[in-house]
Amino acid sequence: MDKIKPYVIGLDLGGTNAVFGIVDARGNIIATTAIKTQAYPVVEDFVEAGCTALEPIIEEVGGIDKIQGMGIGAPNGCYYTGTIESAANLAWKGSVPLAKMFSEKLGIPVALTNDANAAAMGEMTYGVAKGMKNFIMITLGTGVGSGIVINGQVVYGCDGFAGELGHVIMDRSSKGRLCGCGRKGCLEAYCSATGVARSARELLETTDRPSLLREMKAEEITSLDVAIAAGKGDELAKEVFDFTGKMLGEACADFAAFSSPEAFVFFGGLTKAGELIMKPIEEAYNRQVLPIFKGKAKLLVSTLDGAGAAVLGASALGWEA
Amino acid sequence: MDKIKPYVIGLDLGGTNAVFGIVDARGNIIATTAIKTQAYPVVEDFVEAGCTALEPIIEEVGGIDKIQGMGIGAPNGCYYTGTIESAANLAWKGSVPLAKMFSEKLGIPVALTNDANAAAMGEMTYGVAKGMKNFIMITLGTGVGSGIVINGQVVYGCDGFAGELGHVIMDRSSKGRLCGCGRKGCLEAYCSATGVARSARELLETTDRPSLLREMKAEEITSLDVAIAAGKGDELAKEVFDFTGKMLGEACADFAAFSSPEAFVFFGGLTKAGELIMKPIEEAYNRQVLPIFKGKAKLLVSTLDGAGAAVLGASALGWEA
Repeated sequence: MDKIKPYVIGLDLGGTNAVFGIVDARGNIIATTAIKTQAYPVVEDFVEAGCTALEPIIEEVGGIDKIQGMGIGAPNGCYYTGTIESAANLAWKGSVPLAKMFSEKLGIPVALTNDANAAAMGEMTYGVAKGMKNFIMITLGTGVGSGIVINGQVVYGCDGFAGELGHVIMDRSSKGRLCGCGRKGCLEAYCSATGVARSARELLETTDRPSLLREMKAEEITSLDVAIAAGKGDELAKEVFDFTGKMLGEACADFAAFSSPEAFVFFGGLTKAGELIMKPIEEAYNRQVLPIFKGKAKLLVSTLDGAGAAVLGASALGWEA
Repeated sequence: MDKIKPYVIGLDLGGTNAVFGIVDARGNIIATTAIKTQAYPVVEDFVEAGCTALEPIIEEVGGIDKIQGMGIGAPNGCYYTGTIESAANLAWKGSVPLAKMFSEKLGIPVALTNDANAAAMGEMTYGVAKGMKNFIMITLGTGVGSGIVINGQVVYGCDGFAGELGHVIMDRSSKGRLCGCGRKGCLEAYCSATGVARSARELLETTDRPSLLREMKAEEITSLDVAIAAGKGDELAKEVFDFTGKMLGEACADFAAFSSPEAFVFFGGLTKAGELIMKPIEEAYNRQVLPIFKGKAKLLVSTLDGAGAAVLGASALGWEA
């Protein structure tokens, strides 16, 4: 067996930026570099530019022979094929074999998965889920994503796209909110950053209650504004977090019935609201979970640094590429 | 490595009957025997009586040296500990180490799990899920159970009790039906045999529509009566199956977002209704599943014989005990 090499490369591929990092086995980011994703409408040019940007930082750690592999976290990334499939916020259309392209260019094994699965890998390799065999990662960002780990393996399902818990239906009534996926009542329509902002706007429109948020234009309110207002004690803003947390807690109670995880790990901007969001999550979860699962799963917030977490998560894939 | 022996023992442990079978590697039930569970309020007596009943059929196949292991499917069975935990319909209270007791008495390895997980093992070993690595078994009986297989392994979770999909919440409104678990709106409250009978009674009470079911006392209507009436073209009874199937299909659409299985396998009395139940399941599933999963999972009915299926399922565990 070959000796394991000391470093991996992680690539956090977003619609705007592509951030590369070289990471050691303890999860220290040794060096980073970045290019603008949008500047490369042709994917071959993107890979070329990425490898050029990587060159100096690979040299910094002693050359490509010191790199075990590379992991990529990308929207609509499929682990089985190493491809990105028609990602809405990328210019590259159809099925893009990004893992193969980087692998051929760099001469190292490359694995690819979607952002939330990469986050779960990062949490399991370097974060609060280290040593856990069964946990569910919930990413609260522009959307709601998830990465599910069972028996120490990320669940990819029959097609590589398992773990879309942002799209379980929370409101089956005709009042269910329209989701970006085209269906109604999805968890993501309520508990994403845009969902939180929408909840605030709805509450401002349908009631006369006073709120600091009334000082802003309704259409400009973001989830961060709601968090700041709630932090100042604004009752209406706090109610938005109560509503959001309650829904997340109830959803997690259903998820427990699926895989009985030892923990849920929450990650992303909304978790910055701390107890404002975690307390209603816990209350709803404890009230709603099936008696047999009560008190078993921990509700944790990721401790990985926000900016580096996505690169770390992607890099974790590199160890088993 | 020891040579694999030609037979396993399966025990389907119910509240009323305990059915034992000796099964070969192709899923043929070679011999069976049964004792009355209720006749043994002391578990030691039950194990003693079970082993006595097994003796002649074990001799029939050439003695205990021909038996690879034993598998037990039991209510509230925990795979990790081999125990039954406070099963409501068994006389034995607390934690019962049934696997260990049979293993010591018979001198062979014994594994134990709950009924629905055993059914999933049976389906994967001998049934329509043979060769599948990712599928979800839904058992429609007195309750709604489930066995989830991911990467070729039954999902047990952190505690051995994962896969309680009968208890995901389908109606979060105040109108959610009370479930046996004490919560409201569970899938089981609608799609179990008792749930179907209840749906029929509710429809008879709240409407004036004609139905063959009006010839019976409302409280005596069973899911079988509803199926028979629907089979005769009774519109109200057919509506009950449409309602039940729609809910099952919508629930499965959510489950697909979790593990993206290659199939759902339905098992149990309700599946005898054939297209009456499977068609609305398929329609709701295809309408409701997230676009990325459309057309991927098959919706199958178990082909294992009803009477023998539970014994077969339990026996499948014996191969890896």
